[in-house]
Order: sequence, then C-alpha cells, then structure tokens
Amino acid sequence: MPIYKAPLEDVRFVLNEVIGAAQLAQLPGYGEATPEAIDAVLEEAAKICEDLLFPLNQSGDAEGCTFEHGVVKTPPGFKDAYTTFCQGGWAGLSCDPEFGGQGLPTLLSLAIDEMVCSANLSFGMYPGLSHGAYNAIEKHATAELKKLYLPKLAAGTWTGTMCLTEPQCGTDLGLIRTKAVPQPDGTYKITGAKIFISAGEHDLAENIVHLVLARLPDAPPDIRGLSLFLTPKFIPDAQGKVGARNALSCGRLEHKMGIKASATCAMNFDGATAWLVGKPNQGLRAMFTMMNEARLAVGMQGLGVAEISYQNAARYAQERLQGRGLKGAVFPEKPADPIVVHPDVRRSLMTMRALVEGCRALAYSIGLELDIEARHVDPARREAAGQLVALMIPVVKAFVTDVGFDVANMGMQVFGGHGYIRDTGVEQYVRDARIAQIYEGTNGVQALDLVGRKMPDNYGRLMRQFFHPVADFLQAEKDNPALADMLPLFMSAFGKLQMSSLTVATRGVVNPDEAGAAATDYLRLFALVALGFMWLRMAKVAAEKLPQAGARAGFYDSKLKTARFFFSKILPQANALNLAILSGAKTVMDMPAEAF
Amino acid sequence: MPIYKAPLEDVRFVLNEVIGAAQLAQLPGYGEATPEAIDAVLEEAAKICEDLLFPLNQSGDAEGCTFEHGVVKTPPGFKDAYTTFCQGGWAGLSCDPEFGGQGLPTLLSLAIDEMVCSANLSFGMYPGLSHGAYNAIEKHATAELKKLYLPKLAAGTWTGTMCLTEPQCGTDLGLIRTKAVPQPDGTYKITGAKIFISAGEHDLAENIVHLVLARLPDAPPDIRGLSLFLTPKFIPDAQGKVGARNALSCGRLEHKMGIKASATCAMNFDGATAWLVGKPNQGLRAMFTMMNEARLAVGMQGLGVAEISYQNAARYAQERLQGRGLKGAVFPEKPADPIVVHPDVRRSLMTMRALVEGCRALAYSIGLELDIEARHVDPARREAAGQLVALMIPVVKAFVTDVGFDVANMGMQVFGGHGYIRDTGVEQYVRDARIAQIYEGTNGVQALDLVGRKMPDNYGRLMRQFFHPVADFLQAEKDNPALADMLPLFMSAFGKLQMSSLTVATRGVVNPDEAGAAATDYLRLFALVALGFMWLRMAKVAAEKLPQAGARAGFYDSKLKTARFFFSKILPQANALNLAILSGAKTVMDMPAEAF
Repeated sequence: MPIYKAPLEDVRFVLNEVIGAAQLAQLPGYGEATPEAIDAVLEEAAKICEDLLFPLNQSGDAEGCTFEHGVVKTPPGFKDAYTTFCQGGWAGLSCDPEFGGQGLPTLLSLAIDEMVCSANLSFGMYPGLSHGAYNAIEKHATAELKKLYLPKLAAGTWTGTMCLTEPQCGTDLGLIRTKAVPQPDGTYKITGAKIFISAGEHDLAENIVHLVLARLPDAPPDIRGLSLFLTPKFIPDAQGKVGARNALSCGRLEHKMGIKASATCAMNFDGATAWLVGKPNQGLRAMFTMMNEARLAVGMQGLGVAEISYQNAARYAQERLQGRGLKGAVFPEKPADPIVVHPDVRRSLMTMRALVEGCRALAYSIGLELDIEARHVDPARREAAGQLVALMIPVVKAFVTDVGFDVANMGMQVFGGHGYIRDTGVEQYVRDARIAQIYEGTNGVQALDLVGRKMPDNYGRLMRQFFHPVADFLQAEKDNPALADMLPLFMSAFGKLQMSSLTVATRGVVNPDEAGAAATDYLRLFALVALGFMWLRMAKVAAEKLPQAGARAGFYDSKLKTARFFFSKILPQANALNLAILSGAKTVMDMPAEAF
Repeated sequence: MPIYKAPLEDVRFVLNEVIGAAQLAQLPGYGEATPEAIDAVLEEAAKICEDLLFPLNQSGDAEGCTFEHGVVKTPPGFKDAYTTFCQGGWAGLSCDPEFGGQGLPTLLSLAIDEMVCSANLSFGMYPGLSHGAYNAIEKHATAELKKLYLPKLAAGTWTGTMCLTEPQCGTDLGLIRTKAVPQPDGTYKITGAKIFISAGEHDLAENIVHLVLARLPDAPPDIRGLSLFLTPKFIPDAQGKVGARNALSCGRLEHKMGIKASATCAMNFDGATAWLVGKPNQGLRAMFTMMNEARLAVGMQGLGVAEISYQNAARYAQERLQGRGLKGAVFPEKPADPIVVHPDVRRSLMTMRALVEGCRALAYSIGLELDIEARHVDPARREAAGQLVALMIPVVKAFVTDVGFDVANMGMQVFGGHGYIRDTGVEQYVRDARIAQIYEGTNGVQALDLVGRKMPDNYGRLMRQFFHPVADFLQAEKDNPALADMLPLFMSAFGKLQMSSLTVATRGVVNPDEAGAAATDYLRLFALVALGFMWLRMAKVAAEKLPQAGARAGFYDSKLKTARFFFSKILPQANALNLAILSGAKTVMDMPAEAF
C-alpha cells in the first residue's frame, strides 16, 4: 500500500529559512499569519491530507465517477470527505473573512494545495475550481452577486467551474461560439456546448456555479468579443436558498487517463439564466486576473504528485531486497541487499529529490511574491513582485508539471514490474500527473507566453526581476566557501541562459518563428537556472545552520548533498538546451506541413 | 478515431537502401529471402496489422482480459483474430520449416513485430512469448520434446510463456524458490508461485507451454542452481493430442496500467509434471540464449508504439484548427490555422519523427547482425556480428523503449486535452509503451549490462565493433558535401562518447559504483551517437538518391530535413550527458541510505 506523510520539515525550511515567509505577517490583513500560526495550520492540513484524503485516493481512482441520467456521482467516501474538509474551513482558507473565509495568505493556501494534491489530486480539483470561481467573482462581479455567491463558495456549500473549452476551441478562445442573449430583467440566456468542464456536475455540493465565457449578440468575432457569465445550476433566491433548476445539464462524463475521481463533464447550456461578471466583451480579462494563481496552483499539483512519488519510491528502495551492492554485499545477513544500494536506483532517487525540493522552493518563492503583489504597502515593491510573478508563472507551471510527470515515472521505474500493477498504487501518479502538463494552458503555450509576451515586455523589464537578484547573489556569495563547488557550475548555466535570452530576443524580433521554435527549450533552460538559484540559496542556509544543527544536522547535510547532485547531474542539461536554442528555427520550420 | 498505416516506404528504405538487407539471401537457408520476397511478406503483414489487429486495439484496452474461476478470457475479437493470424503462418514466420515454420529471417520477423506492436501491442504479446519459448526449446530441448512441441508453437495452436519472476524475485533470479523434484519416469514435479506471467492463462490456444525456472533438490542456492523446465497446461500424448490437465493454475489476473488485453497472470505450480530443458543447473544459460532476440523484440514494441503515436499526432496537427501562425494567418480562409503551423508543435513532431526513424534504422541494423551471427558462412563475420549484437542489445532495448514512451507522450501532448480522453485513443499508447521500459530487464539493468559487462569485455573488444565502423565512415565521408553541416555536430558528440567511455571504463575498474552511477547517462549518450551514425548513413543515401528520385524526391528531402533536425536539436544532449558522467559517482553515493 502506498504511503504519504506531509513533508512538513522541508515545507518549514523553505518558508522560514529560505524565502522568509515571516514577512507575510507584515502585509496588511495578514497580521495573524505569523510563522507559528502558519505552522499550526500546516500541521492541521497535514492531518486532513494524510488521514482523510489520502485513504480515498486509490479507491477513487479504481471506482471513478459515474454518470447516469444526467447525474454524476463521485466515488464512495468523497462526499463525506468533502463535507469534513469544508467544515474544517479548508475550502475558504485564503478567502476574505468578510465572506466567511479564513483570510490566510495565498502562499499558505498553495503549500496546502501541494499536500492535498499529493494525497488526492482528484479530490483537490473540486475546491481548486471553486477557488478560481471565487476569485473571479470577488474581483469582477457586482456587490450583490458577491454577497450572494462568495460565502457559499468560501464555505464549500457550493462549488464553482470555469467553462471555457468547446469542441472546436481549446487554446484559441477566439473560436468560442456559446451565445449570451440579454433579457429584459438584466439577466442573460446562455446557449452553447462546453467540454472538459472539471467539476461540471457532481454530488458533493448543493449548487454549482458555472463561470461561462460566451458571446453577446453583435460582439466582435474574436477574443475581444467574449464576456463572462455566472450561471448557477440552481437559481438561488436573495437569501441563498437554492431554487429552480437552471437550463443547463451534463451531457457526458469523460473517461480519462487519470484523475478519474474528478468529474470532467460536457456541459450543455440551453438558454440558461446567467448574470454578467465584469464588463461586456471583457470576459477574457476577468478570466485572466486569476490566471497567475490558477497556473501556480497547477504547478502545485505537479509538485504534490512528485512528492508522493518520491516518498513511495524511497521507501520501496529501502525495503525491496534484490541483488547485491556492486562492491559486494552491504547486508550479508539478508538474502539480498535493499535496492537503495544500487547506484542507478540512487541516481533516480536523487534526481527525484533534487527536482522536488528545488521546485518546492521555486514555487513557494513565487507564491510569496503573489501575496506581496496583492498587499504590500509600497507600490514599487508591489510592481516589482508583479513583474517577477508574470515572468515566472509560465516557467513554474510548465516546468513543475513536467517534473510531476517525470518524477512519477522515475518513481514507478524504481518499483520495476510491481510499479505497472494498479494495486501498487504508483502508476496512478503517472496517469494523474499527466493532465497538469496539458490544462490551464499546455506547457507549450506556457513556453510561448514566456518568449512571446514575458520576455519582450518593455525591453526585458520583467526579465530583470530575475536576472538582477541572481547577479546580486552571485556577487555577494562569490567567496562563500560553502558554495565553492557549486558556483562555477551555476555560473556556467547562468551564462548559457543569458546567451540564449539574448539570442531568442533578438532573433524573435525579426522572425517570431525563431522565438516559437526555441520556446520549450528556452523555458526549460530558464527553469533549470531558476532551480539552481534556489539550490544555491538553500545550500547557503544549510551550510550556515549545519554546524549548530544538533538533531537537525541530517536534514541540512542531506540538503547540501542534494544540492551538489543537482549541480553536477541535472544542471548540465543547460548546455544541451543552449546549443539546441542557438541552432535556430530553420530545422523546425523547413519541413512542408503536408510532409508530416 | 486513431489511424494506422504500416510505414512501408520507410521500412523498405532502411532495409534496402541503408542496411543492405539484400545480403540476407546470401545466408544459408535464407536463399528465398530476396528483397522482392521480403517486400511481399511485408505488404501482407501490413494488411493484417492494419485491418485485423489495429481495429481491436482500442476495444481490447477498454474491455481487457477477464478472470473468473481460474479461467482467463481475452477481449472480444481476440480469439478470432489470433486464429486468422496463425492460419496466415504469422506465428511461425521465422521458425524452422522442419517444424512447420516459414523459415524467414529474424530481421523480417522483427520488422513485422514493429507493425504488430503499432497495431496492437497487447495482441503481439501472445505470439511474442510463444516465439521466445520456441527458441528456448529449439536450442536446448531433446529431439523428442522438440518434435512434440515446436510444430504446435510454430503453428500457434499452442502458445508459450516464460516463468521467471516470483514475488520475492525480479531482477535477482538467484532468489528463485520454485522447486523441481525428479520423478522415477524421468519427469519432474514443479512446485512454486510465479508472478507477472504474460499469456500465463488465456483462451486463444488449446494448450500453453510454460518454461519455468526452478531449483532441483540440493542445487546451489544462487543463479547457478536454476534449471529450466517445460511444463504444459495440458499434458499431450506423443501425437500432440492434449490430455489431462496439469497441476498448475492461474491464481490471479493482474490489473495493469496498460497492455490490458495481454493476460498477466500469477501462476501456481502444485506439483506440475515437467520436462527438463537443457542441462541441470544450466537453466539461466538456456533462458539467456534467446535473450538478445527477446530484448530486441521489446525494442520493437517501443518503436511500434512510437510510430503509431507519431502518425496520429501528425494527422491531428494537420486537421486541428486553432490559433494562427506566429507571422500571421497561413490559411486566412479557414477559421484558424492547423496547429502544424506552430513552431512548438512542429518541434514535437520533428522530434518524434527523428527518434522514430533513427530508432528504426538502428534496430533493424542490429536485427540484420542477429541473422548474420546465426548463419553467416564466415566464422569471423559471425563472431564480429555477435560482438556488435552483444554490445548494442542493451542500448537498443533501453533507448528505443524510452523513445516509445517519450514519443507517445509527445504525441498525446499534441492532442492537448483531447489526448487525455480515452476515446481519442492516444493515451493508450502512453500506458502501453510504459511496460517496455520495465520488462525483459529494466532499462537501468540494461545500462548496467552495458557498462558492467559489455564495455569491459576483453578490454573493449565489443566496443571496437561500434567505434571502428564509425571512424571508418567518418574518414570516408569527411569531404562529403551533403554531410558537411552534420559531420561537425556528429563528431563533437562522438568525441564526447569516446571521452565518457574512457572515463567510465577506467574509473569503473577501480570502483564499480563509478560505472553504476554513470550507467544510464552513458547508455543514453551511446544511443544518441549510434542514432547519429544511422542518421549520417541515411542522409548520405538520401542525398545521393535525391537528384534522380522523381516522385520519391519528397521522401528523400524529408529524410535530409529530419537528419538536420536530429543533429541540431537532439544530439546536443550528448554534451549534458558527458558532463554528468564526468562528474562521477560521489554525489550519487554520498547520501546515507536511511536519509532517502
């Protein structure tokens, strides 16, 4: 049976010792979010994840959601778990206390997202989608709609969805056909077919609030003609009591590779009553204000799955007896050595660990900037945080979800044939992690966002928010003996990133295909360097603390060893990526379309 | 719905224009295997794969095998398809005509394996396992057993299995506990539990022939104490008429991530009657004589899945309309451009294609050497072929199955969200391809075989079978203008491989963990250089033929474009791998086992 323990020691290390989450308590409205308070919440969240959500993960995958006569049922146990989850206040953790939320920082919410997604990614989809809907309504809806809907979403009594995709329309939202017709009473009638709607229909909550992108009559035919509509499954009265069923229904439940306990629905809107959120034809803007947090949350899904995959692979490697160490028996009294003695198994485990811990530090560091962007008293600091967030969101979303899938696969490989058997529980992580590379903007789209929008923005203004702190760190630490073996390896990769950045930026101006063809390699190069920067910061702290660490010496020692592994075994990929980038777009674009 | 067309043009190109399969007809016993005859067989095989096996692939995955009261049923349609397949003589394609086989070369059989595995990997498992059993019996059993069993296996009337794995014993076969007790009549009684037995029980054939590794009384307690036993499900009489049920049964059908139509069984042997194959305590040797062909066949599984994944991704990219080219609309008359215009989609498709076509050429080239090793009149040529085969088998098995999985994932990513939906059919390729990285020796075990056994063998004798022909080619083609842009890129990577080889070999002598820690990176580096060598050879041919190619100019032109992509975008990985290898084992081995 698979195991899961929330990695609280590492979470605390990143929050308190690396990125300085203590500054959260200085942000307006977050005065109570002290390290101690955050720690208490994390401990409670760990229990919920380990004891309530994790035990339903495998059964949820095996049983999946079911669909009959328009009704979707979640797997056994999900409804009770969801009720308990909401009663604990977890659905509204970072929601405004005015609407019944806990008012805690987004960073904390993201750290808990990681644990929830380790324990049960499918389960995490339901509150995750609600949270996105909450944010969109909070930022763009009228006071009346907010008052009616936000308390329900914060409490989890109602859940939310995002209805964007249509059969002919995925990445290219300009192709949306769903129509919205204004009614004399100020509402709208929505008609159209949406697909891939997560939590579109289910039995967890008494109502479902669909946020639907649709077109008003005479709206422009492209993305400038999209408006956002709040479309509830049941129309509530002014007191929030659910009333008549709205004219919308689930037409199909998708059968998917993974996240089988998450209901992915085809939704039909047949003149459903809806309310406009934000201004007409500004729907995309309303939808995209919460995009940064949503994409970071998908990154946390990748991280969460990677973490649990590592934990299970590490335990299996310590317990499974097979073969002998290459230098002879390490445990001669046993029938065979545990496979953790084998260098190639260690290589996998170290790779998994270096990626997981590096991604955690990177993602949390951006999560902190999200809170700073939203709340800091200094507008200049807010702006700088916003710029770094804008730059790093595509990097984190794409790279961390790639890591989620890759680490899940490495973990499965450690199990050998047993990993391929469903009962073992680890192949589910591979199937579940796979979706995070696709939704919320495919990872290719993230790469295009990075090279096409973020990089050229105002002559590299966003880029400086990353490059300058790195250069400052290198200057400050250039003689730090604890980093002496790592710095040259990092600086080589950093140099490659600078070279590639300049190349892609200058070539991309002349020929956008040059940027497009380099995009995925460039994003990965950027991510590896960003991870290297986090590893330098973590190694610096670990080296400082190690001498007086006492019982925690093992933790810091492992951190330093993992850092060294990252720099010698993973970061060299920067060389290959840089060469591929420099080679340009010609070999990518040369093939005639019909020759594929 | 997914599509599949056997890639006959590329298969012919590799066979006839690159590796020179015409020499097969000069090998004793293969006189009829002329290019024309081979082509006719390939065309027939293509039809069977496209029309008979491929239509059952998705339904086989959805319905899977079932298990009730010890009886395993294959999915609807499989039994009829298997009967048709056998009636066409496909089960005995490379079997000896003396035993009813077609007597065709192993290379042809492997090329057809690729198609079968594209069309229906699960289906291909049944004749694949039988073929392995056939080979073991043919090479090691008594004339009597051969006469009784081989015609049935060649005809497909009976199928075969390999029973190695036990719950406590996977890679480390020395841990096998299954016992064999000699009986007065010269037979043996087998008692033990085997797991992960592909085709262990099913309804396709009238009998199943299990080849079981077991221990005789007083046999040494390690791998030197294993013997191989032929253990039929039903005991046949001397005429091959099946008789009494043997004391063996299927205790469980595994539920797996993929290859769901392949029955993976836990088999219980409860004093089952068996016959010794080969000599006592020489079971591992008997089992391993067919290992090269079996591992190459698993490589073909990876290639097959990669091929069909590419085909479907390419078609989808040409048909799916979404977004516009980065330089503006390419098809302004359509609502959007096909996604094949996007550089990042092309990057995926080109990567898939460069890997698929490169792996095909590499695998076929080794398949040809298998036939030469077995049949060439010149013992020196046989020996050289055998050395190259021994060296390259782990490279091909591991790299091509990694490619199978990676390409299946890239293909799925091209489909976006639609790829994650089971109905679309492409996520099955990801799940199916995954097993090939695990069974028949995990890819980590392949890497250890390469650095631990093949590389040091007789001071690098095997290595020279690869390095010398490459050096000769480079010398001969150094001024070939058609290769001018590729040769420097190749030579850089080749130099890295030489540097890494020397480093791993010298360090590994002193400290085996050095070789073990470098193994996976080294295998991949070796494979990329080997693929590069095949791409040089293919590019040379394509450049020569292009001017007079007429209607086939497009084919050669695409080949050259794909070669250039490989050298500029994929081969640079050699730099990163070389650096990781040179950095040594310390960062891999430093972490205490209990710290994971």
